[in-house]
Amino acid sequence: MATKSSPPPSKPAPDAARRSERSRRAIYDAALALVGEVGYPKTTIEGIAARAGVGKQTIYRWWSSKAEVLLEAFMDLSGQAAEAAGRPEVLGEGAEYEIPDTGDLAADLKLVLRSTVDELLDPKFEVPSRALAAEGLVNEQVGTEFVARLLEPQLQLYVKRLRSAQEAGEVRPGVDPRIALELFVSPLAQRWLQRTGPISYEYTDTLVDYALHGIAPR
Amino acid sequence: MATKSSPPPSKPAPDAARRSERSRRAIYDAALALVGEVGYPKTTIEGIAARAGVGKQTIYRWWSSKAEVLLEAFMDLSGQAAEAAGRPEVLGEGAEYEIPDTGDLAADLKLVLRSTVDELLDPKFEVPSRALAAEGLVNEQVGTEFVARLLEPQLQLYVKRLRSAQEAGEVRPGVDPRIALELFVSPLAQRWLQRTGPISYEYTDTLVDYALHGIAPR
Repeated sequence: MATKSSPPPSKPAPDAARRSERSRRAIYDAALALVGEVGYPKTTIEGIAARAGVGKQTIYRWWSSKAEVLLEAFMDLSGQAAEAAGRPEVLGEGAEYEIPDTGDLAADLKLVLRSTVDELLDPKFEVPSRALAAEGLVNEQVGTEFVARLLEPQLQLYVKRLRSAQEAGEVRPGVDPRIALELFVSPLAQRWLQRTGPISYEYTDTLVDYALHGIAPR
Repeated sequence: MATKSSPPPSKPAPDAARRSERSRRAIYDAALALVGEVGYPKTTIEGIAARAGVGKQTIYRWWSSKAEVLLEAFMDLSGQAAEAAGRPEVLGEGAEYEIPDTGDLAADLKLVLRSTVDELLDPKFEVPSRALAAEGLVNEQVGTEFVARLLEPQLQLYVKRLRSAQEAGEVRPGVDPRIALELFVSPLAQRWLQRTGPISYEYTDTLVDYALHGIAPR
């Protein structure tokens, strides 16, 4: 790929930008690998720096704590996973992820949940996610940050899709979308997190069907 | 309370039985308090013994590992919570817990979930449960034991109640009860475990309504 020969003066020179990007990537990879191997409490900025082959000061220039590094590494990993899943349709304006809206709520939810199943079963994602989630259960500050910055923004995508379905008459008017989404998201989360059962496309398809149509006779 | 003056020879003398019961209770209390304070990895048999005021050998006579002690302490705590909630109706044959079956599935589920809300909000239950659940996420052996011995038996009570509702025509014939129960149990579990939202009677009542009747128009 060609690089510009004279970058705008407000941006770093291409070589410096590439070096920064390489360091940032190495730091993310080191942080995720470490937390998966030794757990959150034993992961340190020093350990991340050593593994990434950068100085501690490089990390402190960009982040104020290991919690910050890990949260951003996770946000980056989730973004990569969505792209790797070949879901260009979930990239909306400004590269924000969106749940597709084809006018068929069941189909759209099943599609997104199937790609979440793929992500959850990918060891690259699973091991560090589990370590961070475990810390979040007992460390309220980490848990609150994890939810506010990583989990809740993802849940809000479902809120948006359910609101649009509500306007289209596919969801009953009185239903609270923030609670409704939990009927299919939380079972998948619990099976995965607590290993209470296997996860598969068939399973998440079933959750969507039950959530939309209920388990009582119609 | 009067005690028998001549106990059957096959049972320990009442004084010894009372002493054993007192030690067992002290060990459970110490184990739950410690795991809540220092977390699972730093909880040791030595620490439990010291706090309970018993010898290590007393613990090893009854249990083979700290995981065993903690699991039984939790099982005991859950049993106490159910009794304290004044739910004699949930005590079935042989003091096995059961979900009431009044013929009104929604009412029965709401009742049990409301008392689960009370239990989850009780600090005596919350702190150690959170510590054990967190360990279960990253330690597959502890997680598997926790699910098999503590969580799954509770979920099977819902399976039983949903099967009975299916026979009574309150749940559609094709519905899988083991998946269906997750529509109301897992959201509550996730809100509580990961602090993704507040829990209340109104919330669990809503989950039951959505799960039974679906979020799509009827």
